[in-house]
Amino acid sequence: MGLAQLVSNRPLITHQVDTHIHAAACMNQKHLLRFIKKSYQIDADRVVQNIKGKDVTMKELFANLNLHPYDLTVDSLDVHAGRQTFQRFDKFNAKYNPVGASELRDLYMKTENYIDGEYFARIIKEVASDLEDARYQYAEPRLSIYGCNPNEWTKLSGWFNKHRVFSPQLKWMIQVPRIYDIFRGRNFVPHFGKMLENIFLPVFQATIEPHANPELSIFLKHVTGFDSVDDESKHSGHMFCTKSPKPEEWNIVKNPSYTYYIYYMYANITMINQLRKARGMNTFQFRPHCGEAGAVTHLLASFMTADNISHGLNLKKSPVLQYLYFLAQIPIAMSPLSNNSLFLEYAKSPLLEFLKKGLIVSLSTDDPMQFHYTREPLMEEYAIAAQVFKLSTCDMCEISRNSVLQSGLSDEEKTHFLGSDYLKEGPEGNDIRKTNVAQIRMAYRYETLCYELNLIKEGLKTE
Amino acid sequence: MGLAQLVSNRPLITHQVDTHIHAAACMNQKHLLRFIKKSYQIDADRVVQNIKGKDVTMKELFANLNLHPYDLTVDSLDVHAGRQTFQRFDKFNAKYNPVGASELRDLYMKTENYIDGEYFARIIKEVASDLEDARYQYAEPRLSIYGCNPNEWTKLSGWFNKHRVFSPQLKWMIQVPRIYDIFRGRNFVPHFGKMLENIFLPVFQATIEPHANPELSIFLKHVTGFDSVDDESKHSGHMFCTKSPKPEEWNIVKNPSYTYYIYYMYANITMINQLRKARGMNTFQFRPHCGEAGAVTHLLASFMTADNISHGLNLKKSPVLQYLYFLAQIPIAMSPLSNNSLFLEYAKSPLLEFLKKGLIVSLSTDDPMQFHYTREPLMEEYAIAAQVFKLSTCDMCEISRNSVLQSGLSDEEKTHFLGSDYLKEGPEGNDIRKTNVAQIRMAYRYETLCYELNLIKEGLKTE
Repeated sequence: MGLAQLVSNRPLITHQVDTHIHAAACMNQKHLLRFIKKSYQIDADRVVQNIKGKDVTMKELFANLNLHPYDLTVDSLDVHAGRQTFQRFDKFNAKYNPVGASELRDLYMKTENYIDGEYFARIIKEVASDLEDARYQYAEPRLSIYGCNPNEWTKLSGWFNKHRVFSPQLKWMIQVPRIYDIFRGRNFVPHFGKMLENIFLPVFQATIEPHANPELSIFLKHVTGFDSVDDESKHSGHMFCTKSPKPEEWNIVKNPSYTYYIYYMYANITMINQLRKARGMNTFQFRPHCGEAGAVTHLLASFMTADNISHGLNLKKSPVLQYLYFLAQIPIAMSPLSNNSLFLEYAKSPLLEFLKKGLIVSLSTDDPMQFHYTREPLMEEYAIAAQVFKLSTCDMCEISRNSVLQSGLSDEEKTHFLGSDYLKEGPEGNDIRKTNVAQIRMAYRYETLCYELNLIKEGLKTE
Repeated sequence: MGLAQLVSNRPLITHQVDTHIHAAACMNQKHLLRFIKKSYQIDADRVVQNIKGKDVTMKELFANLNLHPYDLTVDSLDVHAGRQTFQRFDKFNAKYNPVGASELRDLYMKTENYIDGEYFARIIKEVASDLEDARYQYAEPRLSIYGCNPNEWTKLSGWFNKHRVFSPQLKWMIQVPRIYDIFRGRNFVPHFGKMLENIFLPVFQATIEPHANPELSIFLKHVTGFDSVDDESKHSGHMFCTKSPKPEEWNIVKNPSYTYYIYYMYANITMINQLRKARGMNTFQFRPHCGEAGAVTHLLASFMTADNISHGLNLKKSPVLQYLYFLAQIPIAMSPLSNNSLFLEYAKSPLLEFLKKGLIVSLSTDDPMQFHYTREPLMEEYAIAAQVFKLSTCDMCEISRNSVLQSGLSDEEKTHFLGSDYLKEGPEGNDIRKTNVAQIRMAYRYETLCYELNLIKEGLKTE
């Protein structure tokens, strides 16, 4: 009987946070199907679209698509990833459209549409309610700010406040897709600087003059961080260096590199945080997608800028970077089921290897709509990892603890879930009655880290 | 969009049967924990044991174990398999005892004890109720008849009827552990023939004179088959042949071989079935555990005697036997999560290979208490297989259909779940509106089977 077993009255899984999940895919496919059918029963005659000045009811919308919701199945809904999406991010992105119809994505999974994103808000609130039932589970859904238009924040915060999407189980993140090239190609923005301005200027303004921006100020209180998202395997060809054009000089159609994006997001967030901290406001973490695919240099960029990263798969390919992430204890939100459908087969996932080495990994779902089968996607993620990698209870509790630590939960919440000393290093920071992580595990982690750090210190001395 | 997707109004998973599950481990660990705590809240002062004439209350029982149910956790309950059970069937068997205490197994997971198996019956009924909520799910729990004592059937059927353990979601199976050597060693039986008599004579009697055996007759109506269980990796050293001792001559302490057990179970069940069929009674399938470990000859014995088998892992090692199981379309109830904890790592499971080749595989849980994490163990089994092997919807529906076909569900139920022509071969036997299996898949299966059978026919001609 290990130490963990001596602790009484704790559940198998302690508090855990789904550290990486996209709001637009936070419901599972059955949930979405049920919601669509229910909405049709109630709202068939409701106007849900306006095409060229003509009102379109839900009935007409489905009729135009040659569909009746009664006939919809999870098969015909076709939002689930499968063999056909592996190594095909394009096909995966298309899965965001139910029945392949962007009209349905627009109606059910967007904050901005004819019904002011009402359905999307309701779906998210149902997900939050499920999490409340599960009690120990939290999630950090990402909402998009594109930087295509200066009004995006106003609209998003309006949606958030109007529908009261707030839930104690949810901590909000803003994701910025790296698609400047598309906006520039369509002449929506003149240069990259304008995109950055659209993304960050409203946040600066709401920070400096909160009363002049009441809606956004309220919303920002619930935002805990920024994410940078898109297919990392796309190459830009650009090498970010001191000679690179400034954002306002970047007016070509070509996309800047991953590193370029990351640096300028980091720079803006850092500035904003300084302003907000000085004013006693909440600050934002920077938690980009990184190392899911593409060049290993992405991991270097995030190493220097990010609070933690999502995926980190490519650390597999670079022992040096892996070592740096270990030394700096930079957390990694991993999603092996997502990877299994997109970039790396489950059995090849480096999750277990990273965990054993002492990297700070958590488990997350990414997109339950596309990847999961059960009503408890995060539990499914933990269960499969436990089965495939034969994780012990202590392993699972350590991963859960990591997820709380790296999340955007408040200091009060972390204290409540992990114990009052959670910020201390080593076993001292662990309250086994709350985390169910054995002290011997904590001691081992701390010793190995100190040993490596000391090795480097000694190495520096002798030089 | 595949054929399966054109079918409307069907759920992702159609009717499915958990084709291999042991009643004593049919609840998951959290369920058992909850039940123990609840029972203590209500029944702390109830007499639950009598040791040497002295009544023992539940409070005293737990006190004797130095335990308080309030302090119990899934960790201290310690019924879950893990790294330490791999290749160790002995350690796995010990996991059947909550907190390592056989007293608790006796109180909560036995049909025969001081409280007449009341708790065990209630746990099973709660599992049945969960299945009823899931609607499309059925299970075939195994209850033990040991053959150690001629009264076992009377007691078991008494328990079944007294507690009304009946549920439309459950089809009952009788499992016979291959532990003659233990009974003989303790002088409980004089020879193997007596063990067979204890197992089968009451069934013969209740078949011939149902009114003289009312309790057993009722119970037998709910029994759909027999299973032969134990660790197959144990060797007996005996080679079953025409010169082997008859059962009543087998009076040594050594256990007979797997094949010996299988043959005599088969012989008795066949006789019983003839009698029952002639009387218009329900008959019994023979569905032994086979090929989980041990010699491949086990698979040969079952090939000649069984309606279908559980596990079948070792078919991996024998292409010839695999081919025979394919030609005869003998179904195999596989439990890759169980194997993962005991005999074979998940990624090495031959499930996908067998499925691709056209073997009739189903998915089953074996022991949710030891192997599963979620509230829906069978769904967990399907979800993990779908993720790890990237099964398509059609694959999953085919496996579900297989599970119904090979189960002990009645003809009415199978007609209801699979369509009225379910006994016909090939696509004709498939009602896609009920099974969601594409006709092109059914046609492919039928063609490949006919092709192979024809090949053999032609081969025989030319000789």
